[in-house]
Amino acid sequence: MTVKALTFDVYGTVVDWRSAILGEGSALRPSLDWAQLADAWRGLYRPTLDRVTRGELAWSPFDHLQRVMLDQVLERSGVSDVTDAERAQLTGVWGRMDSWPDAVPGLNRLKRQFVVCALSNGSVWQLVSLAKRAGLPWDLILSVEMFHAYKPDPRVYQGAAELLQCRPAEVMMVAAHAYDLRAARDVGLRTAFVVRPLEWGPHATAELPEPGEFDLVARDFMDLADQLAADVD
Amino acid sequence: MTVKALTFDVYGTVVDWRSAILGEGSALRPSLDWAQLADAWRGLYRPTLDRVTRGELAWSPFDHLQRVMLDQVLERSGVSDVTDAERAQLTGVWGRMDSWPDAVPGLNRLKRQFVVCALSNGSVWQLVSLAKRAGLPWDLILSVEMFHAYKPDPRVYQGAAELLQCRPAEVMMVAAHAYDLRAARDVGLRTAFVVRPLEWGPHATAELPEPGEFDLVARDFMDLADQLAADVD
Repeated sequence: MTVKALTFDVYGTVVDWRSAILGEGSALRPSLDWAQLADAWRGLYRPTLDRVTRGELAWSPFDHLQRVMLDQVLERSGVSDVTDAERAQLTGVWGRMDSWPDAVPGLNRLKRQFVVCALSNGSVWQLVSLAKRAGLPWDLILSVEMFHAYKPDPRVYQGAAELLQCRPAEVMMVAAHAYDLRAARDVGLRTAFVVRPLEWGPHATAELPEPGEFDLVARDFMDLADQLAADVD
Repeated sequence: MTVKALTFDVYGTVVDWRSAILGEGSALRPSLDWAQLADAWRGLYRPTLDRVTRGELAWSPFDHLQRVMLDQVLERSGVSDVTDAERAQLTGVWGRMDSWPDAVPGLNRLKRQFVVCALSNGSVWQLVSLAKRAGLPWDLILSVEMFHAYKPDPRVYQGAAELLQCRPAEVMMVAAHAYDLRAARDVGLRTAFVVRPLEWGPHATAELPEPGEFDLVARDFMDLADQLAADVD
């Protein structure tokens, strides 16, 4: 069966959340350890969203949850003098991030052959802000906000395939995170793992998939386009 | 209050449905009167969607309803020899339409200053197909399919403002149809009427708004950009 649409994870896979938090955090409060705070903030991401998926926490948009997580991180780190306005500004960073250098040229190549679609835990507004800022040439932006469920909830992937009027096997999920791809695969989507060695900074170990676990493993979006023979010139 | 996002009606306002149906219909079945059939088909649009809004017809995507309407139109016109495959192909025309000449340059100007967002009764897939084909530079595509209600149901406009994280008065609805703008205005959106004198063909009378009824009346999207001072060069 032919792949018609590619759905992309965004945070970590398309944009570099860590550098953005380090950059804006350091500019705002140079005295704090933003490498530690960024990793701790991002570290709360999955446990918090998993609580929503398990029904322990009511669904609310990602902007709101990120603010709640930031408050938790600052409290746990013993930082209390960050004002409300500064916290709001920091939460807004999730709509102001640069993309990895291959993202825009890769998407431009891939969109000649496929529908390229964001499928992210970010809110619609965050995803629109990121796309406008970084010039991401999406054909379509889908947010979990449209399904009131967070990845890896199967309803997100199924809902995306339905809106795309595709059978699950006609959609390929692209992500730098195995948990996301495993959930997509479990409902029948195809899967492409893209390695993002710098997602957690220059000193972290890059996430790599198990051999043979996914349909494709790519170095970046240009390599993904090559492997999908997207370059039809 | 500043406008942040413009939401656009698509069929008639951005794309020329009538020429597309005439073109593809005539190529497929030259003996039929496609001007009459196109107008009759489009004429069933509002009564059918209004039945959904009144709860007399279950919600289903626009692609499906357009096929139902096409079957009705052909039957009423005494045309019975159009095959199932041809009917499916004709229904697909709603995803293959050219835009009015000012649409792409106008949207490109407007998107420098605003979020430009489709807000259409078309299905997500139809809107993606139209955008890819015509190069419509949407920042975001919203379809009534995401709300399971058709315009002019207030939930569509309210749902769009919510996803855009805007107050209603920060969103301006742009359409060539007064009924659409009236419903948007009734829930607090701003409104811009764009005159599309050729929507119903060269011999029809163009729809014009009541004087003073909407915030803006524009000749086309370039004029809209001028009036919104979108050209920031």
